[in-house]
Amino acid sequence: MPLTHFDAEGHAHMVDVSEKATTARQARAEGWVRMAPETLALVTEGRAKKGDVLGVARLAGIMGAKRTADLIPLCHPLPVTKVALDLAPDASLPGIRVEAIVKTSGQTGVEMEALTAVSTACLTIYDMVKAVQKDMEIGGIRLLSKEGGKSGRYEAPR
Amino acid sequence: MPLTHFDAEGHAHMVDVSEKATTARQARAEGWVRMAPETLALVTEGRAKKGDVLGVARLAGIMGAKRTADLIPLCHPLPVTKVALDLAPDASLPGIRVEAIVKTSGQTGVEMEALTAVSTACLTIYDMVKAVQKDMEIGGIRLLSKEGGKSGRYEAPR
Amino acid sequence: MPLTHFDAEGHAHMVDVSEKATTARQARAEGWVRMAPETLALVTEGRAKKGDVLGVARLAGIMGAKRTADLIPLCHPLPVTKVALDLAPDASLPGIRVEAIVKTSGQTGVEMEALTAVSTACLTIYDMVKAVQKDMEIGGIRLLSKEGGKSGRYEAPR
Amino acid sequence: MPLTHFDAEGHAHMVDVSEKATTARQARAEGWVRMAPETLALVTEGRAKKGDVLGVARLAGIMGAKRTADLIPLCHPLPVTKVALDLAPDASLPGIRVEAIVKTSGQTGVEMEALTAVSTACLTIYDMVKAVQKDMEIGGIRLLSKEGGKSGRYEAPR
Amino acid sequence: MPLTHFDAEGHAHMVDVSEKATTARQARAEGWVRMAPETLALVTEGRAKKGDVLGVARLAGIMGAKRTADLIPLCHPLPVTKVALDLAPDASLPGIRVEAIVKTSGQTGVEMEALTAVSTACLTIYDMVKAVQKDMEIGGIRLLSKEGGKSGRYEAPR
Amino acid sequence: MPLTHFDAEGHAHMVDVSEKATTARQARAEGWVRMAPETLALVTEGRAKKGDVLGVARLAGIMGAKRTADLIPLCHPLPVTKVALDLAPDASLPGIRVEAIVKTSGQTGVEMEALTAVSTACLTIYDMVKAVQKDMEIGGIRLLSKEGGKSGRYEAPR
Repeated sequence: MPLTHFDAEGHAHMVDVSEKATTARQARAEGWVRMAPETLALVTEGRAKKGDVLGVARLAGIMGAKRTADLIPLCHPLPVTKVALDLAPDASLPGIRVEAIVKTSGQTGVEMEALTAVSTACLTIYDMVKAVQKDMEIGGIRLLSKEGGKSGRYEAPR
Repeated sequence: MPLTHFDAEGHAHMVDVSEKATTARQARAEGWVRMAPETLALVTEGRAKKGDVLGVARLAGIMGAKRTADLIPLCHPLPVTKVALDLAPDASLPGIRVEAIVKTSGQTGVEMEALTAVSTACLTIYDMVKAVQKDMEIGGIRLLSKEGGKSGRYEAPR
Repeated sequence: MPLTHFDAEGHAHMVDVSEKATTARQARAEGWVRMAPETLALVTEGRAKKGDVLGVARLAGIMGAKRTADLIPLCHPLPVTKVALDLAPDASLPGIRVEAIVKTSGQTGVEMEALTAVSTACLTIYDMVKAVQKDMEIGGIRLLSKEGGKSGRYEAPR
Repeated sequence: MPLTHFDAEGHAHMVDVSEKATTARQARAEGWVRMAPETLALVTEGRAKKGDVLGVARLAGIMGAKRTADLIPLCHPLPVTKVALDLAPDASLPGIRVEAIVKTSGQTGVEMEALTAVSTACLTIYDMVKAVQKDMEIGGIRLLSKEGGKSGRYEAPR
Repeated sequence: MPLTHFDAEGHAHMVDVSEKATTARQARAEGWVRMAPETLALVTEGRAKKGDVLGVARLAGIMGAKRTADLIPLCHPLPVTKVALDLAPDASLPGIRVEAIVKTSGQTGVEMEALTAVSTACLTIYDMVKAVQKDMEIGGIRLLSKEGGKSGRYEAPR
Repeated sequence: MPLTHFDAEGHAHMVDVSEKATTARQARAEGWVRMAPETLALVTEGRAKKGDVLGVARLAGIMGAKRTADLIPLCHPLPVTKVALDLAPDASLPGIRVEAIVKTSGQTGVEMEALTAVSTACLTIYDMVKAVQKDMEIGGIRLLSKEGGKSGRYEAPR
């Protein structure tokens, strides 16, 4: 099975989607930043008074989604019509769970936009907390679902 | 303990590093993309003839490092003096392991640049292979080491 | 009345416009840079021979309009179909008056594009003249009119 | 008196600052967004629960400062070492007052970075509140002070 | 005959294409980098083992096409639906020949995207090889063909 | 002889310049756009009244120089301290000749910034005139000289 981002000679190209139908597209992705319970406590308290880490990360994720085609070489540029992120502390991780949803009406999907939103939000959390803890880990970044387009609906396995 | 990216009133700001010494800085980070063995085989073979997934991802990581301050809201811009990525198939994962090293001479560290390089390379791998497998996972993104600056050397626990 | 850029929990998001109709959109905005009469004279003469301050600012405004979604966090990206700026000396200000018109065919309006065009042009004028006068002021930035979309036509009060 | 951004023939250029000393630079700028008292009340309440308009605008201002050289054609790129914004409701305006401070160590000043931070924050406030009130006005954008470089300290007249 | 990028007063503007039909657009462009036969040999061998100059340049060209509206002041932004580059050694030049094809469905053509792709790829080749040879030359950059839009098909003279 | 932009295994990287001395750097580059005499006449007349093609292209070249590290994958980012372009009609070409000079104080040279400035200016000229003539050609893009750094001065052969 060939990889579609390469032509018959193995050269990278931005795949031709000119003939694809313009349909409603949606993608959801998730990820997390794992940190020590004390670090998580700092982030959680901060929401109230010391500084809104999650608010900053949410915004970074939204803006990151808009930069996707700039960052991912073979990704088609498309004007997203919705970006939203949910960031929630999870004591069992312990850390922050990030989920992003992105929509557009276009000829390709927005999986990469959703994943880039999650990824940028996680990096931003790391950046804001790294003075306190350096050995945090970012992981669990994956596509939760996608809708629209020829390949139709995809739902991640639980 | 306060988070340095917020002032006394809890407002986000870009920390003042004007008084910090300009020193040689270095950071290394790692991460991985986990995929099915058959997908990994496609990527690995491709290096020879069907398309160089890892070469494209490497380049995306290098360019991503240069965009770090654009993506991470409170990150200081600084002119990096070296960026290199190592991408290697790992059958035991199974998937691709990514490691990045970034250097600069500046007043702040390049941890975020190294992490952004890894993150962008992983997203790019996902993008190129997603037509074949959608349930890949990106994880294990963490700082391996940093050098330079007042806080000195950091080495990640094994 | 809620602010639409925040969800029920008060979290910022990029509003979902997927269901909005794609219609012809237009927005006009204005603003000014106030300066000393002698400074204005320098700018005005320059048009003829010493350097085209207004030409440079016009171009900066056009390019600024294209960067709107990069700058304004919750702004939807959309491909503008027309950007034009009018920059005119006004001795009664004294200073330069800037007016911008932006068009697109899309699911959201171009008010922010027009305001960003004006704002960028004003900043560029300031930049080019600041060696001569530092206490210039930028002001009067407001929307003049908008057309298209569900909320229809808006005309600013005189 | 010639404008330094143009050469002897009146052609725009980025002024040569190669021979200028690298010194500590600082600039402060201000501006405001004027709105109806009811709109201001919405923004002020929102800080507590409905959505942090000022937090979003602050972040946009910080990121805007980093894009200054991209936006202002003849502006020198320089790595800023501090960016902070203060946004405060002012019932007497009525509206929001924005003040920005930017620092760097470089061969040119950061006046444009401070003004761009203020301008971007004001535009972002407008964007988030425009569904409620369209006839807001952005104004009073001016340099408050600058320090460093050959021309030394400047303090705006009261 | 007037230049359409200027209005009746000679002011630059982004031409209004709001009324133009959205049609399938395509453009092809070409260019080359001329170098010494020994330099070309280095590039050619590298494809196999020393480093894939052409692969890097191809990717730079694809990403450059996506940045066209950022670089060319009066160019309309539009979401490209295909970008592909062909880079081939030509011993008779001697050097590398670059050809790009870009597609979109839009209200303006993609000639500038194709030319920017070629131009960026050529600059990238120069960058990677300049340590070995500084007197390379980039030339022959021209439009090969365009399709779509009111002016219809254009085919370059041989 | 190895290409420095690739490591021992042939992987692209951004070369480590950490140990290089920070010295004054300068580069000059040139290029041209060839067009029909009637097209050149339009451009030349325009300078006076119909629209300043060369002024727009000059500005695009200056801004393009600032985007060099964004466009050229393995190019080091560095804050340029001077960018100037000279654009002159040449009836013997016939067309426009473009020359750029760029300076910085840094650890790598500014050859790519000068070449990117020329290239962007040429593309911008093409864009503004293409409605009149499509078979223009961009060529003769080459480095004229460089100064600074370990390899010292380079002067292009006549």
